[in-house]
Amino acid sequence: MAFRARHLLGIEHLAPDEIVTVLDLAERYVALNRRTVKRTEALAGLTQINMFFENSTRTQSSFELAGKRLGADVMNMSMQTSSVKKGETLIDTALTLNAMHPDLLVVRHASSGAVDLLAQKVNCAVINAGDGKHEHPTQALLDALTIRRSKGRITGLTVAICGDVAHSRVARSNMLLLGKMGNRVRLIGPPTLVPSAFGDMGAEIHDDMASGLKGADVVMMLRLQKERMDGGFIPSEREYFHRYGLDADKLSHAEPDAIVMHPGPMNRGVEIDGTIADDITRSVIQEQVEMGVAVRMAVMDLLAQNLRAERGRAAVDGTYA
Amino acid sequence: MAFRARHLLGIEHLAPDEIVTVLDLAERYVALNRRTVKRTEALAGLTQINMFFENSTRTQSSFELAGKRLGADVMNMSMQTSSVKKGETLIDTALTLNAMHPDLLVVRHASSGAVDLLAQKVNCAVINAGDGKHEHPTQALLDALTIRRSKGRITGLTVAICGDVAHSRVARSNMLLLGKMGNRVRLIGPPTLVPSAFGDMGAEIHDDMASGLKGADVVMMLRLQKERMDGGFIPSEREYFHRYGLDADKLSHAEPDAIVMHPGPMNRGVEIDGTIADDITRSVIQEQVEMGVAVRMAVMDLLAQNLRAERGRAAVDGTYA
Amino acid sequence: MAFRARHLLGIEHLAPDEIVTVLDLAERYVALNRRTVKRTEALAGLTQINMFFENSTRTQSSFELAGKRLGADVMNMSMQTSSVKKGETLIDTALTLNAMHPDLLVVRHASSGAVDLLAQKVNCAVINAGDGKHEHPTQALLDALTIRRSKGRITGLTVAICGDVAHSRVARSNMLLLGKMGNRVRLIGPPTLVPSAFGDMGAEIHDDMASGLKGADVVMMLRLQKERMDGGFIPSEREYFHRYGLDADKLSHAEPDAIVMHPGPMNRGVEIDGTIADDITRSVIQEQVEMGVAVRMAVMDLLAQNLRAERGRAAVDGTYA
Repeated sequence: MAFRARHLLGIEHLAPDEIVTVLDLAERYVALNRRTVKRTEALAGLTQINMFFENSTRTQSSFELAGKRLGADVMNMSMQTSSVKKGETLIDTALTLNAMHPDLLVVRHASSGAVDLLAQKVNCAVINAGDGKHEHPTQALLDALTIRRSKGRITGLTVAICGDVAHSRVARSNMLLLGKMGNRVRLIGPPTLVPSAFGDMGAEIHDDMASGLKGADVVMMLRLQKERMDGGFIPSEREYFHRYGLDADKLSHAEPDAIVMHPGPMNRGVEIDGTIADDITRSVIQEQVEMGVAVRMAVMDLLAQNLRAERGRAAVDGTYA
Repeated sequence: MAFRARHLLGIEHLAPDEIVTVLDLAERYVALNRRTVKRTEALAGLTQINMFFENSTRTQSSFELAGKRLGADVMNMSMQTSSVKKGETLIDTALTLNAMHPDLLVVRHASSGAVDLLAQKVNCAVINAGDGKHEHPTQALLDALTIRRSKGRITGLTVAICGDVAHSRVARSNMLLLGKMGNRVRLIGPPTLVPSAFGDMGAEIHDDMASGLKGADVVMMLRLQKERMDGGFIPSEREYFHRYGLDADKLSHAEPDAIVMHPGPMNRGVEIDGTIADDITRSVIQEQVEMGVAVRMAVMDLLAQNLRAERGRAAVDGTYA
Repeated sequence: MAFRARHLLGIEHLAPDEIVTVLDLAERYVALNRRTVKRTEALAGLTQINMFFENSTRTQSSFELAGKRLGADVMNMSMQTSSVKKGETLIDTALTLNAMHPDLLVVRHASSGAVDLLAQKVNCAVINAGDGKHEHPTQALLDALTIRRSKGRITGLTVAICGDVAHSRVARSNMLLLGKMGNRVRLIGPPTLVPSAFGDMGAEIHDDMASGLKGADVVMMLRLQKERMDGGFIPSEREYFHRYGLDADKLSHAEPDAIVMHPGPMNRGVEIDGTIADDITRSVIQEQVEMGVAVRMAVMDLLAQNLRAERGRAAVDGTYA
């Protein structure tokens, strides 16, 4: 099996064959999830803990359902009301959880690098569910699966990522994955939201939708963080939509069969026109959510397999109790 | 099987034989729930999502236990902290959830009609757990089961519903159910809380407890929404209790074997005297809670059976993947 | 089997052989929890409800994992947002829950005695997860297991409990358990935090760490409730650490192989120096957390066995449906 990772901390650490392994296994879970009875026992008796230091109903729900359908014992910890509030350090929280013997730890944190740090302190597999502006690897994997199912391949495509790239871990993980798989990435947005330094990651930068979307096979819109508006970055929602919001006119510059993606939740009328979002001949936004559960099942299944193998070897060596 | 509904949106859509089918199956779950081991596999491998846009620890717990005892994978979504807060529309939230392939969606919402709207957008069975002032069908079904167990029948009875009828979905669903099953309904309360328009639903209206309770077999008290007090509707808690709060004196006007009900949580000393609430020869308030879990198990079991049948037919037609 | 309790309300009600029974069974769960597959069916089909009127992510998580690994259907009720807020009384809440037929009720409450009161009203086994300044019995049991594993026995030891003893249910339950098992207990802290009345429970009282720790086999630090600081009890965090915070210098007064304990979450630099907390040759703080899950599994398993036996006898008598 071509999946060697102990944790899933970022796309940065995955090789192309590992990415393909995740997507292939996820396809099988897509089929399972479309059945009425969708239970497996892949993680039966294993403990999954979801630690979300930032709220995210959507992502947490996706991981929770993924774990339950794999038969895991799933526990959500709402870290907003936890010991962290009582002044406990992140490391002490991690060590405390680790002592309860979880097998899979799903972590979202506002600080880039916090999940990596935590992974060094625990004995189980850690999945980064989003850390600051750093990475959100399962989002990039679910986007890749969605693209591969629509386009029949996840290589040789032109993908335009539009909007607030600078603050987006989604954009960053996608750029990394798409680059590794041999696609061309364009970043489109106002210069304040697409720093030129991103060009070093191999992406073309455009500040104009017409030129940026020209010839694109995939149009990936990012959520505009409204709290950053009117703060100097961008003048207003109306002005932003006029220049960068995806509507039929702007989309006409892309390939005729280009698909439209959005990680959700959407601001209709800000970064995307509602009509485009709802056009099922172009928009794959709902399919992204469906792929999310399947990809997370695949990732957790693969990590658990590696965990069992590692612990099996350790037991033979006498180092694992 | 006489239960044809695809969703449970309201009592309005149920025929009498469907109501009886729910109550009969619920009786079997009452027996199961009284055992120490109370697990079945009726919903094994199915996904139940509880979406409560309004808090209700009591109702959500009842649905959660019902689902778990049927073997479902149950997920609670606290919609107060979700994407809805980030400006996502109800429909987008529904479509997102739908893409995760739930089989049963239990929804409470502050707006009348919101649950119906949502049901039109999803592929699974939807249960209304209370929408605005519209309906709360499982409450009416559990009340019916409680009455049938005490009185031996759910027809030909005189049922008095007392208190804040105007704002109560509980009262509305109960009026509909009791009417369909051939009972006589009386509504008792101050005119501000019992609009005369309710007479059109076939109920007698009284603004005096003595006349309203005369000959009643069942006395159903409603929770007084305290936030509506002192706002012109009613003068004070003390005055309200004096005129409409159920005590031994007022109860003496009802039939000698009349039972006392309350959907909870109770305001002791406001709409009901604590002594009456605790008198187990009259009060069936705790039994209502017990029946709640059983009725919800029956409803979810029946809806899941219909879902399987519908999907089986669709698969034969080639329209369901 | 030497465990006769119907509830676990406090260490006060346990006999030494019952304590040993819990610890012995917990050892088997320690071994299970260290495996990758850690599921049993001891509580399969039983319903466990966690009612935390005070937030405690750590303790609630420990009980939740314990229940899930035993195969129970576990439901968390966040009582902060529940009917209690709507003015429902504790007893009404208890009766409501009881009507849903839980088998195990795990309760934390801010008022001493609230859990005892609740236990009198329900038909299931109740576990006190901390009530006011009264008891926290599973904490004392997990501490006892941790000590027994380190020291090889839980009798004839000198145990120093240091810090805010006056407000601590942890200290109280530990004093009771350690006394019953034949250990010597020392209490160390400023007179405002260690009232002399505690001497009546058989403990030696010291207001100086050097004298209090002399010859101690076990050093048990308590969490300082910061909200009580600067309120007359103690001058400042810095001053407190200087006099009562555990550091290498103060620890040198204890036995050379003395272990260091803390119930968590820790205030590093207030009641304990970070270096001591992290010194795995002395600190057993992480092991306490691990033992917590195992002890709770043992307690719930034993209580469920008694519940089944009691209900079986009642069924023979014809009094249990």
